Amino acid sequence: MRAAVFRAPGTPIVVEDVDLAPPGTGEVRVRIAAAGVCHSDLHVRDGDWPLPLPMVLGHEGSGVVLETGPGVTELAAGDHVVLSWVAPCRSCGPCRRGHPAQCLVASGVVSPGGVLMDGTSRLSIAGQTVHHYMGVSAFAEEAVVPAAGAIKIDPAAALDVVCLVGCGVATGVGAVRNTARVQPGTAVVVLGCGGVGLSVVQGARLAGAERIIAVDLRADKTALARTMGATDVVDASAGHTVEAVRDLLPDGADYAFDAIGGPMLTEQCVAVLGMGGAAVVVGIPPAGARASFDTGTLVAKEQRILGSNYGGIDPAIDIPHLVREYLSGDLLLDELVSRRRPLDEAAASLDDLATGATLRELLIP
Amino acid sequence: MRAAVFRAPGTPIVVEDVDLAPPGTGEVRVRIAAAGVCHSDLHVRDGDWPLPLPMVLGHEGSGVVLETGPGVTELAAGDHVVLSWVAPCRSCGPCRRGHPAQCLVASGVVSPGGVLMDGTSRLSIAGQTVHHYMGVSAFAEEAVVPAAGAIKIDPAAALDVVCLVGCGVATGVGAVRNTARVQPGTAVVVLGCGGVGLSVVQGARLAGAERIIAVDLRADKTALARTMGATDVVDASAGHTVEAVRDLLPDGADYAFDAIGGPMLTEQCVAVLGMGGAAVVVGIPPAGARASFDTGTLVAKEQRILGSNYGGIDPAIDIPHLVREYLSGDLLLDELVSRRRPLDEAAASLDDLATGATLRELLIP
Repeated sequence: MRAAVFRAPGTPIVVEDVDLAPPGTGEVRVRIAAAGVCHSDLHVRDGDWPLPLPMVLGHEGSGVVLETGPGVTELAAGDHVVLSWVAPCRSCGPCRRGHPAQCLVASGVVSPGGVLMDGTSRLSIAGQTVHHYMGVSAFAEEAVVPAAGAIKIDPAAALDVVCLVGCGVATGVGAVRNTARVQPGTAVVVLGCGGVGLSVVQGARLAGAERIIAVDLRADKTALARTMGATDVVDASAGHTVEAVRDLLPDGADYAFDAIGGPMLTEQCVAVLGMGGAAVVVGIPPAGARASFDTGTLVAKEQRILGSNYGGIDPAIDIPHLVREYLSGDLLLDELVSRRRPLDEAAASLDDLATGATLRELLIP
Repeated sequence: MRAAVFRAPGTPIVVEDVDLAPPGTGEVRVRIAAAGVCHSDLHVRDGDWPLPLPMVLGHEGSGVVLETGPGVTELAAGDHVVLSWVAPCRSCGPCRRGHPAQCLVASGVVSPGGVLMDGTSRLSIAGQTVHHYMGVSAFAEEAVVPAAGAIKIDPAAALDVVCLVGCGVATGVGAVRNTARVQPGTAVVVLGCGGVGLSVVQGARLAGAERIIAVDLRADKTALARTMGATDVVDASAGHTVEAVRDLLPDGADYAFDAIGGPMLTEQCVAVLGMGGAAVVVGIPPAGARASFDTGTLVAKEQRILGSNYGGIDPAIDIPHLVREYLSGDLLLDELVSRRRPLDEAAASLDDLATGATLRELLIP
């Protein structure tokens, strides 16, 4: 099959012929319908996170099950699925305590090793191992993934668009629902209106927030945020984000989301909080980035700083639910798609994302 | 009446004759049985927090109701009470949402203004206003306080000892129960084994924590922590606290409490957390202190940094319950009392606290 292979930081990914072994026990083979191009792919391309190479990137995908490996009972050929970059093991401590997004196998074996759950890869070129990215590797015609990472969805949903639910939308809406637990009638600030930030805006709207203040450098993105539920927007390019938010919310925010993952933005989130407020870091920063906060204020105002990984979701529950909300019209997804491109243009799509001008581009194999 | 008056940062407090006006509407007059000498008093004496002066210090006290003002129906003369330095207004947003420790009147009017809830003081010397400290001012023979800040307790409890419940013990146990919500079978780290830290240790024991690692510079304090529930101790004077805790907990801590309020300790708390762990800042740092954290780790491990003010308690619920736990033997309080001294020795008692050698000294008027 054809897949986009990443060989060294700073170099473009190249679509090549890659061998894909059949699914092992508890795994399935999926024909990819679409793959979203996301900042996590860009971080890897730019060398921000060290990972074993070569690797097939892409961690946000959807498709149709082609084949099931031994022991797979919940999926069958023909099922429509959204791929999840956490395939919960269901037996580690965090999984048993109801936090599958914190699965120790996913975070300790699959992601850092570039392998599937048994510690090996199904990808190779001329007999040499190629690694999986986060157990997904969706920049390809096909993927072999753990069955727990292929989430069956309603086939009525447009299969290409719902690939967004597999990462950006689950991360943003999940951060609102599972990490922050945003309450009705509250004031929410969202820094960064990319795919994740706009999903935070939508999650806040669905949670019944009274004020939703969307902040971005680009007017086209804050305009889109308004259509998704933002009640106010702030132009970050003016350089006075904290002051502008405080003018809008004299009592401070109940929740502030850093949907980029930059230390400066994390600090701005903390700075706009009111009594009892929570700053939620959703975007993933480069390795080693540090943010600071005033400890006395954190204590005196009982504020919280919360890390949210994959929106704290349970993929098997949240992903089908988000697809249902898309079908009912509550959740907007089509508006997040900037462009559809053939898989062969994967490298150019990553370049576009780096400019900040696009939301989600979909690669169609 | 006699009371310990603080006139300027860096100068000792002096016991003088102070006039006390009768209780106004919704207020009560209390004869102080005992007042605990706590680090918050020390912070004020040292000028760490700017407050209106002169002021009668002391925010941890117990006593007997002498007189009730108009409109007070829940208390009567003779009732035994523990004083609370938050008298919840029950009408602001945080109070209505179930977070009375975040009361906006307490934090916005009473504490910074050095007044009671109507914005005025009952204390004076020769007609000149003297300020209340956090609505309590317990370093005195008597105090006029809001009725909501005088919590009726079981008169079977030793009235002097239970004054500790009014601040340090409520703060420590409350941080475990209300802020962190420590779960059974978990691993807890406590940095600092003063009155608050030892109360965190006890709270963790009562919550069913499996491992409780107590850290302090002083061996006598970690030894006391063992008697209160610590399963392991670490000598902080060795200078390798994070490494020592990691050796004991290879998977990291589920909860780590900074019971001092120093930025370095807060950072150590974050550094020892495992997947999904929570760092809780309980002690109150000097104004302007900042701590930093690795944002990528916070996200990837879904960690949390939580400020806890007054243990997130509801005084009317938590204080009587803690006194019941003392009476049943579940909660140790007598062991926290280093010494009883007459009120006239208030200045010397603050000096002793500054050395770090004592736990709680009680001033007995």
